[in-house]
Amino acid sequence: MAGNTFGQVFKVTTWGESHGKALGVIIDGCPPSLPLSEPDIQQDLDRRRPQSAPSSTPRREPDQVEFLSGTFQGMTTGTPISLLIYNKDVDSRAYEAIKDVFRPGHGDFTYQKKYGIRDYRGGGRASGRETAARVAAGAVARKVLDQEGILVRAYTLELAGVRVERVDLDVIDKNPFLAPDLNAASRMQERIKEIKKSGDSAGGIVEVRVQGCPAGLGEPVFDKLDAELAKALMSIGAVKAVEIGVGLEAARLLGSECNDEITPEGFVTNRSGGILAGISNGDDIVARAAVKPISSIEKEQRTVDIDMKPATISVKGRHDVSAVPRLVPVCEAMVRLVIVDHLLRQRTIPFQSA
Amino acid sequence: MAGNTFGQVFKVTTWGESHGKALGVIIDGCPPSLPLSEPDIQQDLDRRRPQSAPSSTPRREPDQVEFLSGTFQGMTTGTPISLLIYNKDVDSRAYEAIKDVFRPGHGDFTYQKKYGIRDYRGGGRASGRETAARVAAGAVARKVLDQEGILVRAYTLELAGVRVERVDLDVIDKNPFLAPDLNAASRMQERIKEIKKSGDSAGGIVEVRVQGCPAGLGEPVFDKLDAELAKALMSIGAVKAVEIGVGLEAARLLGSECNDEITPEGFVTNRSGGILAGISNGDDIVARAAVKPISSIEKEQRTVDIDMKPATISVKGRHDVSAVPRLVPVCEAMVRLVIVDHLLRQRTIPFQSA
Amino acid sequence: MAGNTFGQVFKVTTWGESHGKALGVIIDGCPPSLPLSEPDIQQDLDRRRPQSAPSSTPRREPDQVEFLSGTFQGMTTGTPISLLIYNKDVDSRAYEAIKDVFRPGHGDFTYQKKYGIRDYRGGGRASGRETAARVAAGAVARKVLDQEGILVRAYTLELAGVRVERVDLDVIDKNPFLAPDLNAASRMQERIKEIKKSGDSAGGIVEVRVQGCPAGLGEPVFDKLDAELAKALMSIGAVKAVEIGVGLEAARLLGSECNDEITPEGFVTNRSGGILAGISNGDDIVARAAVKPISSIEKEQRTVDIDMKPATISVKGRHDVSAVPRLVPVCEAMVRLVIVDHLLRQRTIPFQSA
Amino acid sequence: MAGNTFGQVFKVTTWGESHGKALGVIIDGCPPSLPLSEPDIQQDLDRRRPQSAPSSTPRREPDQVEFLSGTFQGMTTGTPISLLIYNKDVDSRAYEAIKDVFRPGHGDFTYQKKYGIRDYRGGGRASGRETAARVAAGAVARKVLDQEGILVRAYTLELAGVRVERVDLDVIDKNPFLAPDLNAASRMQERIKEIKKSGDSAGGIVEVRVQGCPAGLGEPVFDKLDAELAKALMSIGAVKAVEIGVGLEAARLLGSECNDEITPEGFVTNRSGGILAGISNGDDIVARAAVKPISSIEKEQRTVDIDMKPATISVKGRHDVSAVPRLVPVCEAMVRLVIVDHLLRQRTIPFQSA
Repeated sequence: MAGNTFGQVFKVTTWGESHGKALGVIIDGCPPSLPLSEPDIQQDLDRRRPQSAPSSTPRREPDQVEFLSGTFQGMTTGTPISLLIYNKDVDSRAYEAIKDVFRPGHGDFTYQKKYGIRDYRGGGRASGRETAARVAAGAVARKVLDQEGILVRAYTLELAGVRVERVDLDVIDKNPFLAPDLNAASRMQERIKEIKKSGDSAGGIVEVRVQGCPAGLGEPVFDKLDAELAKALMSIGAVKAVEIGVGLEAARLLGSECNDEITPEGFVTNRSGGILAGISNGDDIVARAAVKPISSIEKEQRTVDIDMKPATISVKGRHDVSAVPRLVPVCEAMVRLVIVDHLLRQRTIPFQSA
Repeated sequence: MAGNTFGQVFKVTTWGESHGKALGVIIDGCPPSLPLSEPDIQQDLDRRRPQSAPSSTPRREPDQVEFLSGTFQGMTTGTPISLLIYNKDVDSRAYEAIKDVFRPGHGDFTYQKKYGIRDYRGGGRASGRETAARVAAGAVARKVLDQEGILVRAYTLELAGVRVERVDLDVIDKNPFLAPDLNAASRMQERIKEIKKSGDSAGGIVEVRVQGCPAGLGEPVFDKLDAELAKALMSIGAVKAVEIGVGLEAARLLGSECNDEITPEGFVTNRSGGILAGISNGDDIVARAAVKPISSIEKEQRTVDIDMKPATISVKGRHDVSAVPRLVPVCEAMVRLVIVDHLLRQRTIPFQSA
Repeated sequence: MAGNTFGQVFKVTTWGESHGKALGVIIDGCPPSLPLSEPDIQQDLDRRRPQSAPSSTPRREPDQVEFLSGTFQGMTTGTPISLLIYNKDVDSRAYEAIKDVFRPGHGDFTYQKKYGIRDYRGGGRASGRETAARVAAGAVARKVLDQEGILVRAYTLELAGVRVERVDLDVIDKNPFLAPDLNAASRMQERIKEIKKSGDSAGGIVEVRVQGCPAGLGEPVFDKLDAELAKALMSIGAVKAVEIGVGLEAARLLGSECNDEITPEGFVTNRSGGILAGISNGDDIVARAAVKPISSIEKEQRTVDIDMKPATISVKGRHDVSAVPRLVPVCEAMVRLVIVDHLLRQRTIPFQSA
Repeated sequence: MAGNTFGQVFKVTTWGESHGKALGVIIDGCPPSLPLSEPDIQQDLDRRRPQSAPSSTPRREPDQVEFLSGTFQGMTTGTPISLLIYNKDVDSRAYEAIKDVFRPGHGDFTYQKKYGIRDYRGGGRASGRETAARVAAGAVARKVLDQEGILVRAYTLELAGVRVERVDLDVIDKNPFLAPDLNAASRMQERIKEIKKSGDSAGGIVEVRVQGCPAGLGEPVFDKLDAELAKALMSIGAVKAVEIGVGLEAARLLGSECNDEITPEGFVTNRSGGILAGISNGDDIVARAAVKPISSIEKEQRTVDIDMKPATISVKGRHDVSAVPRLVPVCEAMVRLVIVDHLLRQRTIPFQSA
């Protein structure tokens, strides 16, 4: 029983394999009369594409989005929006060599176990390329959130052990690592070069901040806003931990250190990350995703083949050194999908307080 | 659009408020012909009840479960199982004093904003008491998992800054903190006493381990097994972070340090926490939940009342010093619900490999 | 993968067997701040109970509803509403005799095939008694619809071949058949007596009319309002056909005879039954359900036992001659559930026209 | 909250407007390792295309299906299958004339009321063209059902008042009305010609028969097999009634006339239409859909424009005289979707009897 749909009201279904003919997304439940056209989507897709940063793959995809349904004369109509991106720069030859060998840390082994068959070219459905469809959907969500004055921004908080020292949202798009700190970005660049040279890969942390979110979003007791954010971020390949507000640190604080006191002007601190009892409290929502290093590395590793015989592998293909910068827009998109879905879910509570 | 149901096939719906008449759970989709009776549930509920540990609330609930439907002659029939627990030791007087004041760190404020009305007695629906229903459902899940040889065990990994130094599953139920290390448990006891004396509260970390889980569970790309575990654990009140395998540490490792090599005997290491590309790989599944300190503390704190006027609060009621020990069976239950749901979801993939 | 939940926003889950301890329903997604108390539910349940009509079963259940959660100080709070009805007048002895024999026309055979086990007492989950939970949920829906000025009324259109000649909503509750025509009701009474004497049973037709429903409800292309009504009514045991507006007759009309012309004053006719392209058009919604005769009859019939050996059966138990009158409030309840669910679903379309 | 997805396990989402760029469908949850290629789909699409019958529209669409994902080397992989059909023969000029006038019997009025905006070209999303996507999905379902030996066949039972007198499945594809009786087909042809000449349109009845369906499918109490079939068929535009087995006639039968007696050789009769208590009983499943006449007719009719001012309309465009023959493969497809979904849902009941 498959799981390629996300959301209850703003319902997003992605499809497509890395080396298939195309990939895309259906958005069912987008409000009507929303101005929407291809450039709205394209600008977000362009941020996700391989950058000139040394962390990125040499594969070059134009990622040109096409609208196939759901808009009329530049406006959404309330019917399903179908967005499609053709795969162009597909070269599957490198994968023939490893089609019978499981790459450590990769989904090869588990897809084979689950389905008994897999499209091994470029990682198939497990490829990071699938996230292009998420970003396209997130761009539509952004248009809805814009109307409500809700701003979602993600950035690289840490990469290859280099953590930012300041958060300046204005510089995020001025460096290839999408870091909010240009000094840190320079040090990231050096560190990534070293790691690349050694045939290895690196992880990091993405932080997402939501500004302007009204209080009241989130659906206890299972579809709490933080629970949905955790699922959304953890559903991105390579994410191994999700934190809300103080996150892991909460385990070591005392109650008096962790609670946010309230004054008529608002919350004094924001250790909660903007969510109390699974419902937004009107403060900024803050979430973080810890990203593991790319599993495809040149360094030789032990593995097994499809018959469980011992083998060694050194993955050459066209791979990023770190997924982190490219996952920044993906994390941003996933958080947008959660927020817009819960914004619309909250509309079904008609007698709420002003 | 409410969110009180968890799971797709093994579908669990909880209901009930802390100081209402009763609370309970409906389990729809439990396989038929499973032997099931009240003691199966009661033993798990008893583990969640306030312990003699100094970390726990003085409220004393027998938590006697009643079966109302779904079984016949001691066996499940495939129809919905309705389990009910009456609230007995209810004393709502203490809450009259704070009904118009929002407790910092608590859901009072956000429930009021979301619904415009709230049952303020004992935290209402936001109370930790709701987790009794989760534990009851988890006990039914345990019976299904037993038949498949899948074992789920949770324990306190860290409490109030005291971390265990060894994991001995046999001693978990031999100390009130459900820690797998008796020495650590002693130190936890001392630390908790100090914190209690100071009118404060403490957080910690719960770890859950799944043994015997077959490879192949989890549904890309959104309902991945790790994404579902993250949602399940984050949906527990007080949880602020979820980790899978190496978790947050993944951000600082190199690819060669993070990948698990594979040999014909299996995975050499288990940094992945038993999940690759969102699908179980047959190794132990390891997840952790970071729990914040109980927000209701005696220490005086600034807050506002329902008219947003300044106020101070010192919560006296009957509260735990730390939620951690009582959340151990709850985390265990939530992980069981995820695993059994995905076990049954996987049955719909009929042509899978042997 | 079970199916005991109905609705997407106003989500109703029923549970319970005919001769189990109790039956009940959880309503998740009811708007908060709705005045609601036991008499609101009880009045609807009382209509469903066996009447003094000769068509009804001698089983006498008080069907006393209990509220277990979801309300506070007489108002809904937005949390799940749990309603429970204990089974009192349970006498399962009659069922011991037929526990190994499949009653023709009944679910005995199919429940056994589906689940491999069944609670044979009183039909278990397949009993008409389950509909008490639907009626309870429908009563909550009625309270929401009242606030919107939407009125749902059902009545017996035809019973045992006797069809009403006029529809006077005021007399529905003045005759035991819930017919909108007292003359027809007298003739129904005679016909039912004859059939009862012969040890047989009778079918009929229930019509449901929705007044005051706004235009715009229904969700193309699969969750159209008529599609949902069809499912809702067909999900009631014994219903074999569902019609909307002109219904079956549409097959024999010409387009010019079937279309409803439109004038500034509204639709000239209502052959559509108030639904166009699966969306309500503001006119009265009209649906009909054809109900088969009760399958448990005294007349001897051929059947097989659980080992597929030939047998004969004559069901004595306590059964209605016709389910029709008791299904009137059930059909009404199911239509209410559909309308309220789509009313709330429509709230998620925020930019709709005035 | 939109409704463009059908099914729980074999989950189908359609998208696209009549005069948009393309239309298509995503199938999520199709079992892996199923041989599947374009001709499998194309043959079903070709049956739905306008025939040479005088009942059909002059619009000529090649309806060439493209596979974009979900298969690899001619086999399904368990990932979402994306199928796309470009619209080619689009001529929207005729619709400019009626863009501000609501066609009686059509969705123009209700789409405008629901969404406040609509793509008026060719009926937009409400067009019968949307059913091409359903047929494509049904063709994939057929491949799964073939492996299980389940055969679903639909045919025209009645058209424009002409009812078939025999059911010979072999002649269905030998006449443009897809009738199982060539004599009746000749009479249908004459009758349709007359109606066409008069500028009017005609309705009819489609019957669907499922052979080889195992006992046990269907999920009480709401997702019963007959309830799901009713929804599936009623969700097709123009269907106004759905019957199972004896259908409407059940209302007039006695219990002894309606029950199907059982012998060791099976059911003696099949008045139930193969479904008891919402669960398949192993006999043939029989369902019927009554189809109203096409609402777009040349005969002048009264209506209103978008400002609710009086108007008259005579629709010239390119329309069928009757939708019935083209709905035959659509009804077939929808029934297949229900059966395959419940076949897979039943897999989650692991301990069922042999």
